[in-house]
Amino acid sequence: MAQQVLTAQQIEALIHQGLPAAKETGLAVVSVEGREAWVRQPFLANQIRPGGTISGPTMMALADAAMYAVILGNLDGEEMAVTQDLHIRFLRRPKQQDLLAHSKIVQQGRRAVIMETFIYSSSDVEKPVAWVTGTYALPLPR
Amino acid sequence: MAQQVLTAQQIEALIHQGLPAAKETGLAVVSVEGREAWVRQPFLANQIRPGGTISGPTMMALADAAMYAVILGNLDGEEMAVTQDLHIRFLRRPKQQDLLAHSKIVQQGRRAVIMETFIYSSSDVEKPVAWVTGTYALPLPR
Amino acid sequence: MAQQVLTAQQIEALIHQGLPAAKETGLAVVSVEGREAWVRQPFLANQIRPGGTISGPTMMALADAAMYAVILGNLDGEEMAVTQDLHIRFLRRPKQQDLLAHSKIVQQGRRAVIMETFIYSSSDVEKPVAWVTGTYALPLPR
Amino acid sequence: MAQQVLTAQQIEALIHQGLPAAKETGLAVVSVEGREAWVRQPFLANQIRPGGTISGPTMMALADAAMYAVILGNLDGEEMAVTQDLHIRFLRRPKQQDLLAHSKIVQQGRRAVIMETFIYSSSDVEKPVAWVTGTYALPLPR
Repeated sequence: MAQQVLTAQQIEALIHQGLPAAKETGLAVVSVEGREAWVRQPFLANQIRPGGTISGPTMMALADAAMYAVILGNLDGEEMAVTQDLHIRFLRRPKQQDLLAHSKIVQQGRRAVIMETFIYSSSDVEKPVAWVTGTYALPLPR
Repeated sequence: MAQQVLTAQQIEALIHQGLPAAKETGLAVVSVEGREAWVRQPFLANQIRPGGTISGPTMMALADAAMYAVILGNLDGEEMAVTQDLHIRFLRRPKQQDLLAHSKIVQQGRRAVIMETFIYSSSDVEKPVAWVTGTYALPLPR
Repeated sequence: MAQQVLTAQQIEALIHQGLPAAKETGLAVVSVEGREAWVRQPFLANQIRPGGTISGPTMMALADAAMYAVILGNLDGEEMAVTQDLHIRFLRRPKQQDLLAHSKIVQQGRRAVIMETFIYSSSDVEKPVAWVTGTYALPLPR
Repeated sequence: MAQQVLTAQQIEALIHQGLPAAKETGLAVVSVEGREAWVRQPFLANQIRPGGTISGPTMMALADAAMYAVILGNLDGEEMAVTQDLHIRFLRRPKQQDLLAHSKIVQQGRRAVIMETFIYSSSDVEKPVAWVTGTYALPLPR
Protein backbone atom coordinates (compact mmCIF):
# COMPACT_ATOMS: atom_id res chain seq x y z
CA MET A 1 0.00 0.00 0.00
CA ALA A 2 1.44 3.27 -1.09
CA GLN A 3 1.31 6.48 0.92
CA GLN A 4 -1.92 8.37 0.56
CA VAL A 5 -1.59 10.40 -2.60
CA LEU A 6 -5.09 11.60 -3.37
CA THR A 7 -7.03 14.33 -1.58
CA ALA A 8 -10.57 13.80 -0.29
CA GLN A 9 -11.76 15.93 -3.21
CA GLN A 10 -9.95 13.79 -5.75
CA ILE A 11 -11.29 10.63 -4.15
CA GLU A 12 -14.82 12.03 -4.25
CA ALA A 13 -14.35 12.81 -7.94
CA LEU A 14 -13.20 9.24 -8.59
CA ILE A 15 -16.20 7.82 -6.73
CA HIS A 16 -18.62 10.11 -8.55
CA GLN A 17 -17.05 9.12 -11.85
CA GLY A 18 -17.15 5.41 -11.05
CA LEU A 19 -20.57 5.32 -9.39
CA PRO A 20 -22.99 7.74 -11.08
CA ALA A 21 -25.65 6.85 -8.50
CA ALA A 22 -23.41 8.16 -5.71
CA LYS A 23 -22.99 11.47 -7.52
CA GLU A 24 -26.73 11.82 -8.06
CA THR A 25 -27.46 11.44 -4.37
CA GLY A 26 -24.84 14.02 -3.43
CA LEU A 27 -22.49 11.65 -1.63
CA ALA A 28 -19.59 13.71 -0.25
CA VAL A 29 -16.15 12.56 0.91
CA VAL A 30 -15.50 14.67 4.00
CA SER A 31 -11.99 13.46 4.78
CA VAL A 32 -9.56 10.65 4.09
CA GLU A 33 -6.65 10.52 6.48
CA GLY A 34 -4.36 7.57 6.73
CA ARG A 35 -6.43 4.41 6.98
CA GLU A 36 -9.72 6.18 7.80
CA ALA A 37 -12.37 8.18 5.99
CA TRP A 38 -15.53 10.13 6.77
CA VAL A 39 -18.23 10.23 4.10
CA ARG A 40 -21.57 12.06 4.18
CA GLN A 41 -24.86 11.03 2.60
CA PRO A 42 -27.25 13.99 2.37
CA PHE A 43 -30.80 13.17 3.43
CA LEU A 44 -33.12 12.52 0.52
CA ALA A 45 -36.85 12.12 0.93
CA ASN A 46 -36.97 9.12 -1.40
CA GLN A 47 -34.72 7.09 0.92
CA ILE A 48 -37.43 6.74 3.52
CA ARG A 49 -38.76 3.33 4.49
CA PRO A 50 -41.90 2.40 6.43
CA GLY A 51 -41.70 3.70 9.97
CA GLY A 52 -40.28 7.02 8.80
CA THR A 53 -36.68 5.95 8.94
CA ILE A 54 -33.91 5.80 6.33
CA SER A 55 -33.82 2.60 4.29
CA GLY A 56 -31.22 -0.09 4.86
CA PRO A 57 -29.92 0.00 1.28
CA THR A 58 -29.13 3.71 1.67
CA MET A 59 -26.86 2.80 4.57
CA MET A 60 -25.31 -0.13 2.70
CA ALA A 61 -24.49 2.09 -0.26
CA LEU A 62 -22.96 4.70 2.02
CA ALA A 63 -20.84 2.09 3.82
CA ASP A 64 -19.63 0.65 0.55
CA ALA A 65 -18.64 4.10 -0.71
CA ALA A 66 -16.92 4.97 2.56
CA MET A 67 -14.85 1.78 2.46
CA TYR A 68 -14.01 2.37 -1.16
CA ALA A 69 -12.86 5.90 -0.28
CA VAL A 70 -10.29 4.48 2.15
CA ILE A 71 -9.05 2.03 -0.45
CA LEU A 72 -8.71 4.74 -3.08
CA GLY A 73 -6.86 6.87 -0.57
CA ASN A 74 -4.45 4.16 0.42
CA LEU A 75 -3.88 2.05 -2.65
CA ASP A 76 -2.51 4.28 -5.35
CA GLY A 77 -5.10 4.27 -8.10
CA GLU A 78 -6.46 0.93 -6.93
CA GLU A 79 -9.77 1.30 -8.67
CA MET A 80 -10.13 -2.36 -9.37
CA ALA A 81 -10.52 -3.63 -5.82
CA VAL A 82 -13.83 -5.46 -5.61
CA THR A 83 -16.13 -6.04 -2.68
CA GLN A 84 -16.03 -9.71 -1.71
CA ASP A 85 -18.58 -9.51 1.04
CA LEU A 86 -20.33 -6.91 3.15
CA HIS A 87 -22.15 -7.57 6.42
CA ILE A 88 -24.34 -4.86 7.90
CA ARG A 89 -25.85 -4.99 11.37
CA PHE A 90 -28.51 -2.38 12.12
CA LEU A 91 -28.17 -0.91 15.61
CA ARG A 92 -30.68 1.94 15.94
CA ARG A 93 -33.18 3.82 13.84
CA PRO A 94 -31.50 6.65 11.96
CA LYS A 95 -33.08 10.09 12.19
CA GLN A 96 -34.45 11.86 9.14
CA GLN A 97 -31.24 13.75 8.49
CA ASP A 98 -27.87 13.34 6.78
CA LEU A 99 -25.91 10.19 7.53
CA LEU A 100 -22.19 10.17 8.31
CA ALA A 101 -20.02 7.11 7.77
CA HIS A 102 -16.68 6.52 9.43
CA SER A 103 -14.72 3.75 7.79
CA LYS A 104 -11.30 2.31 8.52
CA ILE A 105 -8.98 -0.52 7.61
CA VAL A 106 -8.94 -3.33 10.16
CA GLN A 107 -6.39 -5.49 8.38
CA GLN A 108 -4.59 -5.20 5.10
CA GLY A 109 -3.10 -8.28 3.54
CA ARG A 110 -1.72 -9.02 0.09
CA ARG A 111 -4.95 -10.49 -1.18
CA ALA A 112 -7.60 -8.50 0.60
CA VAL A 113 -8.38 -5.52 2.81
CA ILE A 114 -10.76 -6.04 5.73
CA MET A 115 -12.69 -2.96 6.72
CA GLU A 116 -15.17 -1.57 9.19
CA THR A 117 -17.67 1.28 8.96
CA PHE A 118 -19.89 2.85 11.58
CA ILE A 119 -22.82 4.91 10.32
CA TYR A 120 -24.30 7.77 12.35
CA SER A 121 -27.11 10.27 12.11
CA SER A 122 -25.19 13.48 11.49
CA SER A 123 -26.39 15.14 14.69
CA ASP A 124 -25.16 12.29 16.90
CA VAL A 125 -21.80 10.72 16.11
CA GLU A 126 -21.70 8.97 19.46
CA LYS A 127 -24.41 6.40 18.83
CA PRO A 128 -23.99 4.48 15.58
CA VAL A 129 -27.11 3.45 13.65
CA ALA A 130 -25.39 0.69 11.70
CA TRP A 131 -22.17 -1.28 11.80
CA VAL A 132 -20.68 -2.71 8.65
CA THR A 133 -17.78 -5.09 8.10
CA GLY A 134 -16.47 -6.04 4.69
CA THR A 135 -13.70 -7.62 2.67
CA TYR A 136 -12.31 -6.08 -0.51
CA ALA A 137 -10.28 -8.32 -2.80
CA LEU A 138 -7.17 -6.75 -4.31
CA PRO A 139 -6.03 -7.52 -7.85
CA LEU A 140 -3.58 -10.41 -7.86
CA PRO A 141 0.00 -9.55 -8.76
CA ARG A 142 0.89 -10.67 -12.28
CA MET B 1 -47.56 -16.63 9.92
CA ALA B 2 -50.84 -16.35 8.14
CA GLN B 3 -51.61 -17.78 4.72
CA GLN B 4 -50.46 -15.63 1.84
CA VAL B 5 -53.17 -13.09 1.28
CA LEU B 6 -51.66 -10.49 -0.99
CA THR B 7 -50.93 -10.83 -4.70
CA ALA B 8 -47.52 -10.03 -6.19
CA GLN B 9 -49.05 -6.86 -7.57
CA GLN B 10 -50.33 -5.77 -4.17
CA ILE B 11 -46.97 -6.51 -2.61
CA GLU B 12 -45.21 -4.47 -5.29
CA ALA B 13 -47.57 -1.59 -4.57
CA LEU B 14 -46.76 -1.80 -0.85
CA ILE B 15 -43.03 -1.82 -1.56
CA HIS B 16 -43.30 1.12 -3.96
CA GLN B 17 -45.33 3.00 -1.39
CA GLY B 18 -42.92 2.24 1.44
CA LEU B 19 -39.69 2.66 -0.50
CA PRO B 20 -39.96 5.48 -3.05
CA ALA B 21 -36.43 4.72 -4.28
CA ALA B 22 -37.55 1.22 -5.30
CA LYS B 23 -40.41 2.65 -7.32
CA GLU B 24 -38.15 5.13 -9.08
CA THR B 25 -35.81 2.39 -10.26
CA GLY B 26 -38.67 0.28 -11.58
CA LEU B 27 -38.32 -2.59 -9.13
CA ALA B 28 -40.92 -5.22 -10.04
CA VAL B 29 -42.29 -8.08 -7.95
CA VAL B 30 -42.55 -10.95 -10.42
CA SER B 31 -44.09 -13.56 -8.12
CA VAL B 32 -44.65 -14.38 -4.48
CA GLU B 33 -45.63 -17.97 -3.85
CA GLY B 34 -45.60 -19.52 -0.44
CA ARG B 35 -42.32 -18.74 1.22
CA GLU B 36 -40.52 -17.61 -1.93
CA ALA B 37 -40.45 -14.59 -4.21
CA TRP B 38 -38.89 -13.46 -7.48
CA VAL B 39 -38.15 -9.76 -7.91
CA ARG B 40 -36.66 -7.96 -10.93
CA GLN B 41 -34.44 -4.89 -10.98
CA PRO B 42 -34.39 -3.30 -14.45
CA PHE B 43 -30.93 -2.33 -15.64
CA LEU B 44 -30.17 1.34 -15.18
CA ALA B 45 -27.06 2.99 -16.59
CA ASN B 46 -26.40 4.89 -13.36
CA GLN B 47 -25.93 1.62 -11.42
CA ILE B 48 -22.63 0.88 -13.12
CA ARG B 49 -19.43 0.66 -11.15
CA PRO B 50 -15.80 0.68 -12.35
CA GLY B 51 -15.10 -2.36 -14.49
CA GLY B 52 -18.44 -2.02 -16.29
CA THR B 53 -20.41 -4.10 -13.86
CA ILE B 54 -23.45 -3.39 -11.69
CA SER B 55 -22.70 -1.87 -8.29
CA GLY B 56 -22.89 -3.84 -5.08
CA PRO B 57 -25.44 -1.53 -3.44
CA THR B 58 -27.82 -2.13 -6.36
CA MET B 59 -27.73 -5.83 -5.52
CA MET B 60 -28.06 -5.20 -1.79
CA ALA B 61 -31.14 -3.05 -2.36
CA LEU B 62 -32.65 -5.69 -4.62
CA ALA B 63 -32.01 -8.44 -2.07
CA ASP B 64 -33.54 -6.41 0.71
CA ALA B 65 -36.65 -5.74 -1.37
CA ALA B 66 -36.94 -9.39 -2.40
CA MET B 67 -36.77 -10.54 1.21
CA TYR B 68 -39.26 -7.91 2.23
CA ALA B 69 -41.62 -9.13 -0.51
CA VAL B 70 -41.66 -12.61 1.04
CA ILE B 71 -42.37 -11.17 4.46
CA LEU B 72 -45.21 -9.03 3.15
CA GLY B 73 -46.60 -12.06 1.36
CA ASN B 74 -46.46 -14.30 4.39
CA LEU B 75 -47.06 -12.10 7.38
CA ASP B 76 -50.38 -10.47 6.94
CA GLY B 77 -49.78 -6.75 6.77
CA GLU B 78 -46.45 -7.15 8.53
CA GLU B 79 -45.02 -3.90 7.33
CA MET B 80 -43.11 -3.25 10.52
CA ALA B 81 -40.60 -6.08 10.28
CA VAL B 82 -37.14 -4.55 10.30
CA THR B 83 -33.89 -5.82 8.89
CA GLN B 84 -31.56 -6.83 11.72
CA ASP B 85 -28.63 -7.78 9.58
CA LEU B 86 -27.85 -8.50 5.96
CA HIS B 87 -24.76 -10.32 4.68
CA ILE B 88 -23.98 -10.28 0.98
CA ARG B 89 -21.30 -12.41 -0.69
CA PHE B 90 -20.47 -11.51 -4.27
CA LEU B 91 -19.98 -14.56 -6.47
CA ARG B 92 -19.55 -13.39 -10.06
CA ARG B 93 -19.66 -10.19 -12.07
CA PRO B 94 -23.20 -9.40 -13.15
CA LYS B 95 -23.82 -8.62 -16.79
CA GLN B 96 -25.09 -5.23 -17.90
CA GLN B 97 -28.71 -6.35 -17.91
CA ASP B 98 -31.67 -6.73 -15.56
CA LEU B 99 -31.08 -8.53 -12.29
CA LEU B 100 -33.41 -11.18 -10.89
CA ALA B 101 -33.59 -12.00 -7.19
CA HIS B 102 -34.97 -15.23 -5.78
CA SER B 103 -35.61 -15.01 -2.06
CA LYS B 104 -36.99 -17.52 0.40
CA ILE B 105 -37.54 -18.10 4.08
CA VAL B 106 -34.96 -20.40 5.67
CA GLN B 107 -36.42 -20.35 9.15
CA GLN B 108 -39.31 -18.54 10.72
CA GLY B 109 -39.43 -18.12 14.45
CA ARG B 110 -41.50 -16.00 16.78
CA ARG B 111 -38.93 -13.26 17.04
CA ALA B 112 -37.31 -13.27 13.64
CA VAL B 113 -37.37 -14.58 10.09
CA ILE B 114 -34.12 -15.79 8.57
CA MET B 115 -33.95 -15.47 4.81
CA GLU B 116 -31.82 -16.16 1.78
CA THR B 117 -31.63 -14.52 -1.63
CA PHE B 118 -29.74 -15.46 -4.75
CA ILE B 119 -29.29 -12.76 -7.38
CA TYR B 120 -28.85 -13.54 -11.07
CA SER B 121 -28.26 -11.74 -14.32
CA SER B 122 -31.63 -12.14 -15.99
CA SER B 123 -30.27 -14.12 -18.93
CA ASP B 124 -28.68 -16.77 -16.69
CA VAL B 125 -30.62 -17.95 -13.67
CA GLU B 126 -28.29 -20.90 -13.20
CA LYS B 127 -25.24 -19.01 -12.02
CA PRO B 128 -25.91 -16.58 -9.19
CA VAL B 129 -23.94 -13.33 -9.07
CA ALA B 130 -24.55 -12.70 -5.38
CA TRP B 131 -25.77 -14.59 -2.33
CA VAL B 132 -27.46 -12.80 0.51
CA THR B 133 -28.52 -13.97 3.95
CA GLY B 134 -30.43 -11.85 6.41
CA THR B 135 -32.47 -11.69 9.58
CA TYR B 136 -35.70 -9.70 9.90
CA ALA B 137 -36.95 -8.93 13.38
CA LEU B 138 -40.69 -9.28 13.89
CA PRO B 139 -42.65 -6.95 16.15
CA LEU B 140 -42.90 -8.37 19.64
CA PRO B 141 -46.36 -9.50 20.72
CA ARG B 142 -47.95 -7.08 23.16
CA MET C 1 -10.59 -28.24 -9.39
CA ALA C 2 -9.63 -31.79 -10.10
CA GLN C 3 -12.01 -34.72 -10.08
CA GLN C 4 -12.69 -36.13 -6.67
CA VAL C 5 -9.86 -38.50 -5.97
CA LEU C 6 -10.11 -39.29 -2.30
CA THR C 7 -12.66 -41.50 -0.58
CA ALA C 8 -14.66 -40.35 2.44
CA GLN C 9 -12.45 -42.58 4.56
CA GLN C 10 -9.27 -41.01 3.21
CA ILE C 11 -10.67 -37.54 3.76
CA GLU C 12 -11.59 -38.44 7.33
CA ALA C 13 -8.06 -39.67 7.90
CA LEU C 14 -6.64 -36.38 6.56
CA ILE C 15 -8.95 -34.37 8.82
CA HIS C 16 -8.09 -36.48 11.86
CA GLN C 17 -4.41 -36.09 11.06
CA GLY C 18 -4.67 -32.33 10.55
CA LEU C 19 -7.06 -31.58 13.41
CA PRO C 20 -6.36 -33.79 16.43
CA ALA C 21 -9.32 -32.25 18.24
CA ALA C 22 -11.67 -33.56 15.53
CA LYS C 23 -10.28 -37.07 15.94
CA GLU C 24 -10.70 -36.95 19.71
CA THR C 25 -14.38 -36.07 19.45
CA GLY C 26 -15.02 -38.87 16.96
CA LEU C 27 -15.88 -36.66 13.99
CA ALA C 28 -16.82 -38.94 11.09
CA VAL C 29 -16.96 -38.19 7.37
CA VAL C 30 -20.08 -40.01 6.20
CA SER C 31 -19.82 -39.23 2.49
CA VAL C 32 -18.18 -36.89 0.01
CA GLU C 33 -19.79 -36.91 -3.39
CA GLY C 34 -19.05 -34.29 -5.99
CA ARG C 35 -19.34 -30.90 -4.41
CA GLU C 36 -21.15 -32.07 -1.27
CA ALA C 37 -20.33 -33.84 1.96
CA TRP C 38 -22.09 -35.24 5.03
CA VAL C 39 -20.18 -35.26 8.30
CA ARG C 40 -21.31 -36.57 11.71
CA GLN C 41 -20.41 -35.26 15.15
CA PRO C 42 -21.18 -37.85 17.83
CA PHE C 43 -22.91 -36.44 20.87
CA LEU C 44 -20.57 -35.79 23.77
CA ALA C 45 -21.78 -34.82 27.21
CA ASN C 46 -19.15 -32.09 27.57
CA GLN C 47 -20.57 -30.18 24.60
CA ILE C 48 -23.65 -29.14 26.52
CA ARG C 49 -24.40 -25.49 27.18
CA PRO C 50 -26.89 -23.93 29.63
CA GLY C 51 -30.42 -24.86 28.68
CA GLY C 52 -29.43 -28.45 27.99
CA THR C 53 -28.58 -27.89 24.35
CA ILE C 54 -25.39 -28.41 22.33
CA SER C 55 -22.97 -25.49 22.39
CA GLY C 56 -22.51 -23.15 19.44
CA PRO C 57 -18.77 -23.82 19.10
CA THR C 58 -19.50 -27.53 18.66
CA MET C 59 -21.63 -26.65 15.65
CA MET C 60 -19.06 -24.18 14.31
CA ALA C 61 -16.31 -26.80 14.52
CA LEU C 62 -18.52 -29.34 12.76
CA ALA C 63 -19.38 -26.88 9.97
CA ASP C 64 -15.73 -25.99 9.47
CA ALA C 65 -14.78 -29.67 9.23
CA ALA C 66 -17.65 -30.41 6.84
CA MET C 67 -16.62 -27.58 4.52
CA TYR C 68 -13.02 -28.68 4.70
CA ALA C 69 -14.09 -32.23 3.76
CA VAL C 70 -15.62 -30.93 0.52
CA ILE C 71 -12.47 -28.98 -0.28
CA LEU C 72 -10.25 -31.99 0.35
CA GLY C 73 -12.54 -34.07 -1.82
CA ASN C 74 -12.55 -31.65 -4.69
CA LEU C 75 -9.16 -29.98 -4.69
CA ASP C 76 -6.57 -32.68 -5.03
CA GLY C 77 -4.54 -32.60 -1.84
CA GLU C 78 -5.52 -28.99 -1.20
CA GLU C 79 -4.67 -29.08 2.45
CA MET C 80 -3.53 -25.51 2.52
CA ALA C 81 -6.87 -23.80 1.86
CA VAL C 82 -7.58 -21.51 4.80
CA THR C 83 -10.85 -20.28 6.19
CA GLN C 84 -11.25 -16.56 5.46
CA ASP C 85 -14.52 -16.09 7.24
CA LEU C 86 -17.33 -18.17 8.68
CA HIS C 87 -20.81 -16.91 9.52
CA ILE C 88 -23.14 -19.11 11.55
CA ARG C 89 -26.83 -18.40 12.13
CA PHE C 90 -28.54 -20.49 14.77
CA LEU C 91 -32.01 -21.62 13.73
CA ARG C 92 -33.33 -24.02 16.38
CA ARG C 93 -32.15 -25.75 19.52
CA PRO C 94 -30.36 -28.98 18.70
CA LYS C 95 -31.44 -32.11 20.52
CA GLN C 96 -29.08 -33.99 22.81
CA GLN C 97 -27.98 -36.38 20.10
CA ASP C 98 -25.48 -36.64 17.24
CA LEU C 99 -25.29 -33.74 14.82
CA LEU C 100 -25.16 -34.15 11.05
CA ALA C 101 -23.68 -31.51 8.75
CA HIS C 102 -24.42 -31.23 5.05
CA SER C 103 -21.97 -28.95 3.27
CA LYS C 104 -21.68 -27.94 -0.36
CA ILE C 105 -19.84 -25.59 -2.66
CA VAL C 106 -21.88 -22.54 -3.67
CA GLN C 107 -19.26 -20.98 -5.91
CA GLN C 108 -15.74 -21.90 -6.77
CA GLY C 109 -13.43 -19.26 -8.16
CA ARG C 110 -9.69 -19.09 -8.68
CA ARG C 111 -9.02 -17.31 -5.43
CA ALA C 112 -11.65 -18.69 -3.11
CA VAL C 113 -14.39 -21.27 -2.58
CA ILE C 114 -17.67 -20.10 -1.10
CA MET C 115 -19.52 -22.76 0.85
CA GLU C 116 -22.69 -23.51 2.76
CA THR C 117 -23.46 -25.97 5.54
CA PHE C 118 -26.72 -26.94 7.20
CA ILE C 119 -26.50 -28.68 10.55
CA TYR C 120 -29.19 -31.05 11.80
CA SER C 121 -29.99 -33.14 14.82
CA SER C 122 -29.39 -36.63 13.48
CA SER C 123 -32.98 -37.74 14.02
CA ASP C 124 -34.42 -34.89 11.95
CA VAL C 125 -32.64 -33.91 8.76
CA GLU C 126 -35.60 -31.83 7.63
CA LYS C 127 -35.26 -28.99 10.11
CA PRO C 128 -31.76 -27.53 10.31
CA VAL C 129 -30.51 -26.28 13.68
CA ALA C 130 -27.84 -24.01 12.21
CA TRP C 131 -26.88 -22.50 8.88
CA VAL C 132 -23.30 -21.65 8.06
CA THR C 133 -21.75 -19.79 5.16
CA GLY C 134 -18.02 -19.41 4.67
CA THR C 135 -15.20 -18.48 2.33
CA TYR C 136 -12.04 -20.54 1.97
CA ALA C 137 -9.03 -18.87 0.36
CA LEU C 138 -7.08 -21.02 -2.08
CA PRO C 139 -3.30 -20.83 -2.35
CA LEU C 140 -2.28 -18.38 -5.05
CA PRO C 141 -0.70 -19.89 -8.14
CA ARG C 142 3.04 -19.29 -8.26
CA MET D 1 -28.92 -4.04 32.06
CA ALA D 2 -28.04 -4.10 35.70
CA GLN D 3 -24.75 -2.94 37.16
CA GLN D 4 -22.00 -5.52 37.02
CA VAL D 5 -22.43 -7.71 40.05
CA LEU D 6 -20.24 -10.72 39.42
CA THR D 7 -16.46 -10.88 39.61
CA ALA D 8 -14.33 -12.31 36.81
CA GLN D 9 -13.81 -15.36 38.97
CA GLN D 10 -17.54 -15.88 39.47
CA ILE D 11 -18.14 -15.44 35.76
CA GLU D 12 -15.44 -17.98 34.97
CA ALA D 13 -17.09 -20.41 37.38
CA LEU D 14 -20.45 -19.91 35.65
CA ILE D 15 -18.88 -20.49 32.22
CA HIS D 16 -17.06 -23.61 33.40
CA GLN D 17 -20.27 -24.90 34.94
CA GLY D 18 -22.31 -24.17 31.81
CA LEU D 19 -19.73 -25.27 29.25
CA PRO D 20 -17.75 -28.27 30.47
CA ALA D 21 -15.63 -28.14 27.30
CA ALA D 22 -14.42 -24.66 28.24
CA LYS D 23 -13.34 -25.88 31.67
CA GLU D 24 -11.47 -28.85 30.19
CA THR D 25 -9.40 -26.60 27.94
CA GLY D 26 -8.51 -24.28 30.81
CA LEU D 27 -10.38 -21.23 29.53
CA ALA D 28 -9.75 -18.38 31.96
CA VAL D 29 -11.69 -15.14 32.44
CA VAL D 30 -8.96 -12.55 32.99
CA SER D 31 -11.17 -9.54 33.62
CA VAL D 32 -14.69 -8.23 33.14
CA GLU D 33 -15.00 -4.49 33.55
CA GLY D 34 -18.03 -2.58 32.48
CA ARG D 35 -18.98 -3.63 28.99
CA GLU D 36 -15.68 -5.35 28.19
CA ALA D 37 -13.92 -8.60 29.03
CA TRP D 38 -10.56 -10.28 28.47
CA VAL D 39 -10.52 -14.07 28.26
CA ARG D 40 -7.51 -16.38 27.81
CA GLN D 41 -7.37 -19.71 26.01
CA PRO D 42 -4.25 -21.66 27.01
CA PHE D 43 -2.42 -23.23 24.11
CA LEU D 44 -3.20 -26.90 23.66
CA ALA D 45 -1.35 -29.11 21.23
CA ASN D 46 -4.55 -30.74 19.97
CA GLN D 47 -5.86 -27.40 18.67
CA ILE D 48 -3.34 -27.32 15.84
CA ARG D 49 -4.46 -27.31 12.23
CA PRO D 50 -2.46 -27.98 9.06
CA GLY D 51 0.19 -25.33 8.60
CA GLY D 52 1.11 -25.41 12.27
CA THR D 53 -1.42 -22.79 13.33
CA ILE D 54 -4.30 -22.83 15.80
CA SER D 55 -7.60 -24.06 14.39
CA GLY D 56 -10.45 -21.73 13.54
CA PRO D 57 -12.96 -23.47 15.83
CA THR D 58 -10.64 -22.86 18.79
CA MET D 59 -10.90 -19.15 18.08
CA MET D 60 -14.66 -19.31 17.54
CA ALA D 61 -15.14 -21.05 20.88
CA LEU D 62 -12.94 -18.48 22.61
CA ALA D 63 -14.85 -15.58 21.04
CA ASP D 64 -18.17 -17.08 22.04
CA ALA D 65 -17.01 -17.52 25.63
CA ALA D 66 -15.57 -14.00 25.76
CA MET D 67 -18.84 -12.49 24.56
CA TYR D 68 -20.78 -14.62 27.00
CA ALA D 69 -18.53 -13.39 29.81
CA VAL D 70 -19.52 -9.80 29.08
CA ILE D 71 -23.18 -10.73 29.06
CA LEU D 72 -22.90 -12.58 32.34
CA GLY D 73 -21.08 -9.59 33.79
CA ASN D 74 -23.64 -7.08 32.66
CA LEU D 75 -26.96 -8.84 32.73
CA ASP D 76 -27.56 -10.04 36.23
CA GLY D 77 -27.70 -13.81 36.06
CA GLU D 78 -28.66 -13.68 32.40
CA GLU D 79 -27.61 -17.18 31.67
CA MET D 80 -30.30 -17.75 29.10
CA ALA D 81 -29.10 -15.32 26.45
CA VAL D 82 -28.53 -17.32 23.27
CA THR D 83 -26.22 -16.70 20.37
CA GLN D 84 -28.24 -15.71 17.31
CA ASP D 85 -25.35 -15.44 14.92
CA LEU D 86 -21.58 -15.23 15.01
CA HIS D 87 -19.37 -14.03 12.16
CA ILE D 88 -15.63 -14.57 12.36
CA ARG D 89 -13.10 -13.05 9.97
CA PHE D 90 -9.57 -14.44 10.16
CA LEU D 91 -6.91 -11.75 9.93
CA ARG D 92 -3.50 -13.36 10.54
CA ARG D 93 -2.05 -16.72 11.52
CA PRO D 94 -1.99 -17.09 15.28
CA LYS D 95 1.27 -18.19 16.87
CA GLN D 96 1.56 -21.47 18.77
CA GLN D 97 0.86 -19.86 22.12
CA ASP D 98 -2.05 -18.82 24.32
CA LEU D 99 -4.79 -16.75 22.72
CA LEU D 100 -6.31 -13.67 24.31
CA ALA D 101 -9.79 -12.42 23.45
CA HIS D 102 -11.02 -8.90 24.07
CA SER D 103 -14.78 -8.62 23.77
CA LYS D 104 -17.11 -5.67 24.21
CA ILE D 105 -20.70 -4.62 23.74
CA VAL D 106 -21.29 -2.56 20.60
CA GLN D 107 -25.00 -2.02 21.14
CA GLN D 108 -27.44 -3.21 23.71
CA GLY D 109 -31.13 -3.20 22.92
CA ARG D 110 -34.15 -4.72 24.58
CA ARG D 111 -34.17 -7.77 22.35
CA ALA D 112 -30.51 -8.35 21.65
CA VAL D 113 -26.94 -7.45 22.45
CA ILE D 114 -24.54 -6.89 19.57
CA MET D 115 -20.94 -7.64 20.40
CA GLU D 116 -17.42 -7.59 19.04
CA THR D 117 -14.32 -9.62 19.90
CA PHE D 118 -10.74 -9.29 18.77
CA ILE D 119 -8.50 -12.31 19.28
CA TYR D 120 -4.73 -12.00 19.71
CA SER D 121 -1.71 -14.22 20.17
CA SER D 122 -0.84 -13.54 23.79
CA SER D 123 2.58 -12.10 23.00
CA ASP D 124 1.19 -9.48 20.60
CA VAL D 125 -2.00 -7.71 21.57
CA GLU D 126 -1.49 -5.08 18.89
CA LYS D 127 -2.18 -7.25 15.86
CA PRO D 128 -5.41 -9.23 16.09
CA VAL D 129 -5.53 -12.69 14.51
CA ALA D 130 -9.31 -12.80 14.23
CA TRP D 131 -12.26 -10.44 14.44
CA VAL D 132 -15.66 -11.66 15.53
CA THR D 133 -19.04 -9.98 15.56
CA GLY D 134 -22.15 -11.52 17.01
CA THR D 135 -25.71 -11.05 18.18
CA TYR D 136 -27.05 -12.52 21.42
CA ALA D 137 -30.80 -12.71 21.84
CA LEU D 138 -32.14 -11.77 25.26
CA PRO D 139 -35.10 -13.56 26.83
CA LEU D 140 -38.33 -11.75 26.03
CA PRO D 141 -40.04 -10.05 28.92
CA ARG D 142 -43.10 -11.99 30.10
